[in-house]
Amino acid sequence: MGKCVNHPDRETSFMCMKNNICLCDECIKCRNREIHCKFRSSCPIWFLDKLVDKDIDEASAAEKKKEYKVFFQPDNKEIIISEGATLLDAAVAGDIPLNASCNGKGSCGKCKLILESGTGKCAETPLLTQKEKENQYVLACQTTVHSDIAVRIPEETLEKKLKIVGMGKEVTDRMQGLVKEISPMLENISLELTPPTLDDAISDLDRLLRDLAKSGCDTSRLSIGLKVMRELAATLRNENWKVTATVIKKRNSSEIVSVISGNNGINSLGLAIDVGTTSIVVYLVDMADGRVMAATSGHNRQAACGDDVINRIVCAEKDGVKKLSRMALATINGLINEAIASADVERGRIDNIVLSGNMTMIHLLLQIEPRNIRREPYIPSVSAFPILKAGHIGLKVNPVAAVFVMPGPAGYVGGDIVSGLIYTGFHREGAITLFIDLGTNGEIVLGNNEWLMTASCSAGPAFEGGGIRWGMRAEDGAIEKITIDSETFTPTYSVVGDTLPRGICGSGMIDLLSEMLLTGIIRPNGKFDIDDTHPRITKDSDEPAYILAFADETSVDKDILFMESDIDNIIRSKGAVYAGFKVLLNQVEMDFSMLDRMIITGGFGQYLDLEKAVTIGLLPDIERSKFQYLGNSSIGGAYMALISEKYRKEAIEISNRMTYVDFSNNNRFMDEFTSALFLPHTSLEEFPSVKRMV
Amino acid sequence: MGKCVNHPDRETSFMCMKNNICLCDECIKCRNREIHCKFRSSCPIWFLDKLVDKDIDEASAAEKKKEYKVFFQPDNKEIIISEGATLLDAAVAGDIPLNASCNGKGSCGKCKLILESGTGKCAETPLLTQKEKENQYVLACQTTVHSDIAVRIPEETLEKKLKIVGMGKEVTDRMQGLVKEISPMLENISLELTPPTLDDAISDLDRLLRDLAKSGCDTSRLSIGLKVMRELAATLRNENWKVTATVIKKRNSSEIVSVISGNNGINSLGLAIDVGTTSIVVYLVDMADGRVMAATSGHNRQAACGDDVINRIVCAEKDGVKKLSRMALATINGLINEAIASADVERGRIDNIVLSGNMTMIHLLLQIEPRNIRREPYIPSVSAFPILKAGHIGLKVNPVAAVFVMPGPAGYVGGDIVSGLIYTGFHREGAITLFIDLGTNGEIVLGNNEWLMTASCSAGPAFEGGGIRWGMRAEDGAIEKITIDSETFTPTYSVVGDTLPRGICGSGMIDLLSEMLLTGIIRPNGKFDIDDTHPRITKDSDEPAYILAFADETSVDKDILFMESDIDNIIRSKGAVYAGFKVLLNQVEMDFSMLDRMIITGGFGQYLDLEKAVTIGLLPDIERSKFQYLGNSSIGGAYMALISEKYRKEAIEISNRMTYVDFSNNNRFMDEFTSALFLPHTSLEEFPSVKRMV
Repeated sequence: MGKCVNHPDRETSFMCMKNNICLCDECIKCRNREIHCKFRSSCPIWFLDKLVDKDIDEASAAEKKKEYKVFFQPDNKEIIISEGATLLDAAVAGDIPLNASCNGKGSCGKCKLILESGTGKCAETPLLTQKEKENQYVLACQTTVHSDIAVRIPEETLEKKLKIVGMGKEVTDRMQGLVKEISPMLENISLELTPPTLDDAISDLDRLLRDLAKSGCDTSRLSIGLKVMRELAATLRNENWKVTATVIKKRNSSEIVSVISGNNGINSLGLAIDVGTTSIVVYLVDMADGRVMAATSGHNRQAACGDDVINRIVCAEKDGVKKLSRMALATINGLINEAIASADVERGRIDNIVLSGNMTMIHLLLQIEPRNIRREPYIPSVSAFPILKAGHIGLKVNPVAAVFVMPGPAGYVGGDIVSGLIYTGFHREGAITLFIDLGTNGEIVLGNNEWLMTASCSAGPAFEGGGIRWGMRAEDGAIEKITIDSETFTPTYSVVGDTLPRGICGSGMIDLLSEMLLTGIIRPNGKFDIDDTHPRITKDSDEPAYILAFADETSVDKDILFMESDIDNIIRSKGAVYAGFKVLLNQVEMDFSMLDRMIITGGFGQYLDLEKAVTIGLLPDIERSKFQYLGNSSIGGAYMALISEKYRKEAIEISNRMTYVDFSNNNRFMDEFTSALFLPHTSLEEFPSVKRMV
Repeated sequence: MGKCVNHPDRETSFMCMKNNICLCDECIKCRNREIHCKFRSSCPIWFLDKLVDKDIDEASAAEKKKEYKVFFQPDNKEIIISEGATLLDAAVAGDIPLNASCNGKGSCGKCKLILESGTGKCAETPLLTQKEKENQYVLACQTTVHSDIAVRIPEETLEKKLKIVGMGKEVTDRMQGLVKEISPMLENISLELTPPTLDDAISDLDRLLRDLAKSGCDTSRLSIGLKVMRELAATLRNENWKVTATVIKKRNSSEIVSVISGNNGINSLGLAIDVGTTSIVVYLVDMADGRVMAATSGHNRQAACGDDVINRIVCAEKDGVKKLSRMALATINGLINEAIASADVERGRIDNIVLSGNMTMIHLLLQIEPRNIRREPYIPSVSAFPILKAGHIGLKVNPVAAVFVMPGPAGYVGGDIVSGLIYTGFHREGAITLFIDLGTNGEIVLGNNEWLMTASCSAGPAFEGGGIRWGMRAEDGAIEKITIDSETFTPTYSVVGDTLPRGICGSGMIDLLSEMLLTGIIRPNGKFDIDDTHPRITKDSDEPAYILAFADETSVDKDILFMESDIDNIIRSKGAVYAGFKVLLNQVEMDFSMLDRMIITGGFGQYLDLEKAVTIGLLPDIERSKFQYLGNSSIGGAYMALISEKYRKEAIEISNRMTYVDFSNNNRFMDEFTSALFLPHTSLEEFPSVKRMV
């Protein structure tokens, strides 16, 4: 195939595609940087070299450890894993979605599997009932593999279709009305150039730039890559000087990312992507008219590494940020596939993308080091991002597609919150607004068109089902709306998807807690006031619990319980949020009465009952007409920034002008938090309407 | 090693380093773009795939064609080549420098080899003498291989040390004085950042940008790559917030290309590179003080593909532009190696580079399509280049080194001419100057600080030895200075390197022609006036020739002849140049008398005799004090642009303001050319001083 660059007398079949050199066996095996290690990360020769090493490594590793097959049902997937690895390891390796809220610590009890055959050693755990143990239930993270094994993912652990607010047709239709003028980052500009003559003999590139300038492009700041220059002569002449140039407009300069022959026009598509810790939402958008052609959503596969951002960062420190990036990419690329299939469009037409997510999600996705976000003073590596190319970050669309990443003001207030502002728009108005995004974090923004304060209050994942025995996301089978009969304590509930229930989602928990307080099942301190002689009250491992649904009323054949510890978790979450409100208001010497509006966003499901949220002390007891619930605002803002440069500029501007207040070392926050660990609050005076009820 | 991304049940050892995915054998073999072909050019997986194919291709190819070894002396290199290939093919494959002026057409007779053993079929050629044939001389390009062969490169074909003007210590010392202020493209900025606190919790990148701004960097236009962002957190903290940021200043924006831990300062080195059609010159420069630390030069290995740019383009059309790029890169990287060895410095410190060359050389080096340069209306793909990175174009220095390419105004007036202006500086003065660069092309510039006209007059490679039987470059053994006794016709000459002669270089030819005219050996039409009864006159294949050196006075044991056809070639070259002068002057209604100065540059060797150049009509008969010979101005200008942003800006500005005049379809040029095909000219009135002599 060629001669070795160092030994021209040697024929070799190893050619480096990047440097266009051939190398013989000897040169490939050597580790001399001068020869082939300069481009290590993408060097095929080094790669070959490494393969050889790995083969040896693997062979010696194989001698040490036996490997077994793990067969997963109902996925029908067979994974090969070394002896002693856990079933959770096998699921992660095989990319089988499994809920593992606590990142394999064995504390959440959510990664249940049914062992159908084979030998797995399951550590002792209080999180499985006797009946479950009899039925061969094990926890995936606590069970090591010591033979070929077959497991089944039980009904209650299976992932179901998410119920995402902001996915309905009426919502996406409304979106289109929000943006008047369409101005994408990446534009396909069709041109018909004048062929050169002796009197007009400028270079091909200058000819192209001349016509781009005529079409309104600022060519004084245009850059161009080697690849485009190398192919330019042929591209311009292939279809008789008709071409389409693809230009990305960046903040300070622009780039011609590709030039293709022909000028028939390209119908661009865009993606708005909300990268949530729990779920990811993708809108596929027609860039010509802003129409949402498809909306898909799914669970972030990183869930196998824990429910919250801290667990994800810990996992990235242990296994490397690439693993977490791959998991998020697998989810996103899967959703993109669904979206393009449902709209029946070509992947390569997708050339504009906006990513919105919290700092940790964005760092992990882009493989940027996130470790300092979780350590005081909580520093992200990057908070404002340059425009990236889709191919560089692993999105399976047109590789030169322009990717705008929503900037964020701090390690715990990210681009998803900036998106929320863009969507709700209160920062453009004079009215003073308090904004809360209730996801795993609980980010708060206070302000108006003159000033913006922001903070994060570590609400925790309780409202998304994390840390709650029967907690789950707002997907099929989740109890989302509850009332309790004050006499019999019998609940009436509605279930997402109108099926038998298999757990409780965030809005359900708020309803339940409010009802239990008002009916006197629990006291304001969250402790049970009724003993377990009542048929609705039981004890589990000595802990009192309310039976929300009896086993025969469920799809999981088990009682769905609401434990005292669950109540405690929710009280801590709502306490953190309420304390956050008060401290932020206090920073500007305000109180709740001075608010003109309060906006609540987050993926609760459709039925967040604001009245009941006030009853438990999550929201302040203010005039109800001031409340506004706006669903998933992160995807809404991402959509608007995708469509219009105005909102991309606004996002950068907002991010820069928000003042971040850190609560982690704030004594006042700790005091307020302690005061809020009551239902609704230690100071009942703050909740006059609740006081009247209890 | 990992699970196949498409078949998670399959373990595989093939991992794509770029996309971080594993693929099983089946997926690797498939050609599905979605899976692994998006990044074809640099995709290791595709590469593996291709290897498999190539193995098969090679196996089947091997069945068809036998392969033989060709052993080259004195290089001691053994090359394996297929039956029927030529010895020139073998030399090119083995990167053995061989002079092949005519690109293997069999018309120049320069690629002589001595067949020491084996069977080579040499086509009949008049370019080998009977004696040469008896001594087993063959032409490499005309001899096909039909057995294992051993050949020796004879003395007269061996490449010797080039004698390059502008390489001496006094020249490089003078260079340093030319530039007052040093302002490199790429700067290493040492910083000590303030560690973050809760009160100063901006992101790592913002922290870096804040201090870069303080150090005078315009951060509003800074871009940054993913790789730098990914490593930033660790880089900043590794040496306690001491870092060195490497920033490339581009025209419209700047880029942080790397950030490393520690701020001890990096002593930058630079390269000024003159990529000539015939020879390449490299200056290694200390960017701290502008000192030239080493200067190296060598023959452009593309010479195996022909002497002039047209032959190079033809070769690129046949074999692909990558082949020609590799040849130039091999030469340049070899010269870089020599330079860093002689200065004893590290390759990685080289981070600023300026390339100067004609359009074709630059297109070939950068692998940009050059084919339209040789076709009317002579359009280069690119004439003004963005700042490139050394690693992207194959230069073996710091891969992020910034590369500035000298821009040029037209397909036949390139960056080397713009360099010439920068170096000579006449475009900054009011005096009207005529500038000629006498390389293979003969580019002319006329003007001053108000206007600049330029043209190329296709002088051809005669003055560089091309098309001249015993013509050679100004290297060891070249006769460079000649006088002829008017009685005996006996020549007196000096030889480059003070050795026995083996050919004639450009300045020697001008001397010789002038002397032959003045002594009456030839008539003004270039025909011999003396018959071959004179001992200094002979006939070769019926063509009269002057014997410049007898065989026993040479190092090649053959008479060094100056043929009538050689004279004809030189007359055509000088005629083209003189016609160019006249037509360009005529464009602005001027004549020679209105010139304030005439600058001649080019790699003639040290001894260009201006008086004799006037005698043969190459230069106009004007006041001699107006002449200035300035050697290799291309490297001089490249050096100045390397050191100072002022000259890089000036280069772009000059290139834009030069008016190019095309001679190819210019009737007046054809008339003037015809008139100039006499010694010195058909109109002797134009050369009064010559008229007095003859």
